[in-house]
Amino acid sequence: MIQTDILIIGAGPTGLFMVFEAGLLKLRCHIIDALPQPGGQLAELYPKKPIFDIPGYPSVGAGELIDNLMEQIKQFEPGFTLNEVAETIDKQEDGSFIVTTNRGTKHHAKAVAIAGGLGSFEPRKPELTDVAKFEEKGIEYFVRNPEMFRDKRIVIAGGGDSALDWSIFLADVASEVTLVHRRNEFRGALDSVEKVQELKKMGKINLITPAEVVELHGDEHLTAITLQKEGEKQTIETDYLIPLFGLTPKLGPIANWGLEIEKNAIKVNNALDYQTNVDGIYAVGDINTYPGKLKLILCGFHEATMACQSIYQRLNPGKKYILKYTTVSGIDGFDGSRKEAEKAVVKSID
Amino acid sequence: MIQTDILIIGAGPTGLFMVFEAGLLKLRCHIIDALPQPGGQLAELYPKKPIFDIPGYPSVGAGELIDNLMEQIKQFEPGFTLNEVAETIDKQEDGSFIVTTNRGTKHHAKAVAIAGGLGSFEPRKPELTDVAKFEEKGIEYFVRNPEMFRDKRIVIAGGGDSALDWSIFLADVASEVTLVHRRNEFRGALDSVEKVQELKKMGKINLITPAEVVELHGDEHLTAITLQKEGEKQTIETDYLIPLFGLTPKLGPIANWGLEIEKNAIKVNNALDYQTNVDGIYAVGDINTYPGKLKLILCGFHEATMACQSIYQRLNPGKKYILKYTTVSGIDGFDGSRKEAEKAVVKSID
Ligand SMILES: Cc1cc2nc3c(=O)[nH]c(=O)nc-3n(C[C@H](O)[C@H](O)[C@H](O)COP(=O)(O)OP(=O)(O)OC[C@H]3O[C@@H](n4cnc5c(N)ncnc54)[C@H](O)[C@@H]3O)c2cc1C
Ligand SMILES: Cc1cc2nc3c(=O)[nH]c(=O)nc-3n(C[C@H](O)[C@H](O)[C@H](O)COP(=O)(O)OP(=O)(O)OC[C@H]3O[C@@H](n4cnc5c(N)ncnc54)[C@H](O)[C@@H]3O)c2cc1C
Repeated sequence: MIQTDILIIGAGPTGLFMVFEAGLLKLRCHIIDALPQPGGQLAELYPKKPIFDIPGYPSVGAGELIDNLMEQIKQFEPGFTLNEVAETIDKQEDGSFIVTTNRGTKHHAKAVAIAGGLGSFEPRKPELTDVAKFEEKGIEYFVRNPEMFRDKRIVIAGGGDSALDWSIFLADVASEVTLVHRRNEFRGALDSVEKVQELKKMGKINLITPAEVVELHGDEHLTAITLQKEGEKQTIETDYLIPLFGLTPKLGPIANWGLEIEKNAIKVNNALDYQTNVDGIYAVGDINTYPGKLKLILCGFHEATMACQSIYQRLNPGKKYILKYTTVSGIDGFDGSRKEAEKAVVKSID
Repeated sequence: MIQTDILIIGAGPTGLFMVFEAGLLKLRCHIIDALPQPGGQLAELYPKKPIFDIPGYPSVGAGELIDNLMEQIKQFEPGFTLNEVAETIDKQEDGSFIVTTNRGTKHHAKAVAIAGGLGSFEPRKPELTDVAKFEEKGIEYFVRNPEMFRDKRIVIAGGGDSALDWSIFLADVASEVTLVHRRNEFRGALDSVEKVQELKKMGKINLITPAEVVELHGDEHLTAITLQKEGEKQTIETDYLIPLFGLTPKLGPIANWGLEIEKNAIKVNNALDYQTNVDGIYAVGDINTYPGKLKLILCGFHEATMACQSIYQRLNPGKKYILKYTTVSGIDGFDGSRKEAEKAVVKSID
């Protein structure tokens, strides 16, 4: 069982920054996320786009902001359970919690912070009868590890940035890349569209539009798919089908955790510490709601900071916490590192 | 009279970022600060030091953060009244406010946001009888404009970073620089101490320690000072005395504005919009207090953002505000500039 002080559900910007504020208070964190990588909406939905309202950044790429947050928290050694959905929570007699994922991984924590954004990101699936049967047996909704497709035949379905970008990337990895989209037009960054055009001309991407996957074939594992193109059916042998139809966030299992829900979000006490109606469970970032709530990254940073202070009080009852400025006190990492400002000298001049 | 939508008192990080959030809502801001430059504590107290807890910045120099904030807000064209202390406030019948400074500058605004930090920074003054008589007539507590000292004789008193750094800078401007400190030891960045040592050896700085200024001389304007060094008195002719003994923040005149004050800070409604007990006056950043308040820069950013939304509602009653992501909507500056993410294209591949 994974042990930690604060279990954070959601590796978006709010959850990541919480690791930092917890670290300043000497609390350790572990993060669960349904996605294969940290970064939440920023990494999954708009990694290459600029954000203009992060304080102190006239402009910062969403992916760059996540990289910076990962760098900022690294000395506090957060643990990650990725690719798994937090499914059940059990409060223990001593006030601690056990959170179990859809894959059965158990986490034991003194406090829980839900930083789940719009909910756990779940892929939109093709509406075909046999889909469930081939999941993880030929059908993949994420490219978690590109090496998995080395020298394999793959079919990518979709018409947006993910479909374009993974087709480009995997053209150098897979033995055969087929890109299928139900329209002739793709929607994405201009250079991605142009690159796919070029790879198609070079014969490195096999493009079939407008077409849809209508049948799946195979026994234990997917071996072929049937496409329908303008009324004509066509069957292609393949090792993998990667449908990239976008993700929809679902509040999902958290909705059944006994928390007060309003407008698909978790009500918190914003007048104090962003705690939910269940003692010891906090909700921060896009997933919470309170009067005047703004779903902004900068608000999540503040909320996570306030929640950490409350958790510190909870775990250290009666102990008075004195706020320390990082500039003045520096930062001691759990990894033994130390960051600090250059010290002033006291020195006579002669 | 200066006209604006939101009058912000205090040009620290909170006040500066507020200009940005107001600008997104098409509200114009004007800022008053007692100091000669924007940046509040960061610019005045620790401009060269790193801060480690600004979200998304593993480390950022305090001065650099202020520069970035100035860059981030510039398209919203904030006005500045610097070197002046906001002294009185008068609420008008229509709910707007007139704020007057110690120099008589009047500002008319639809809402007021106090982002005054620890209060207006006031210089510690030497305890000499004639000090007030010579202020702005030979005694200066800030180097607002170094050119003022071109080819003049100056005496700088103090033993910290400001005294060291201005002695170094003005050694190239003034005709004569004398640095006086009551101890032999200076306290500051190592390279500043070493540079003063070097300039002393080159005869460009005249160093007198341990010594104190004990008398001021002159009629209309300061003409000389008397120092006491180990019991011996010595009189030096000079055009200026610049005592750099540090600044103390004073809540000052704001304490008499009819606002609820607790522990030297202004009470606000943190459950909603950081408004004070006076309708239309908000308090954000270090200057406010509420249960659990943390005097951190990142908290000021959130508070300013929430206050802007409330001010928007106040000025546009009944109008529903729909949050727009900067990434999606871009930013239209008041100066006609536009910042936006690269647009996706919709394009067929053939
Ligand atoms: C196109 C676009 C542009 C935007 N532009 C801006 C902007 O300019 N400025 C701005 O401030 N904001 C912007 N936003 C909003 C911003 O992205 C969100 O405010 C931010 O991502 C919220 O961060 P978070 O950490 O609270 O949640 P998220 O980023 O949503 O991360 C939550 C994570 O929790 C995971 N999760 C949820 N439930 C579970 C579970 N049960 N088990 C496991 N994992 C779970 C999810 O998979 C997800 O990765 C934009 C959003 C979009 C979509
Ligand atoms: C050495 C040091 C290290 C620090 N390190 C950190 C850190 O690592 N992380 C962190 O988050 N915070 C840190 N802080 C605290 C941080 O600097 C403050 O939280 C921040 O400056 C508050 O910003 P503000 O805009 O609210 O107010 P301030 O920066 O205090 O600015 C307020 C401004 O208002 C002006 N003002 C006030 N009243 C009036 C008036 N009546 N008329 C005109 N002007 C007025 C003042 O002159 C001042 O310029 C540190 C502080 C110090 C001193």
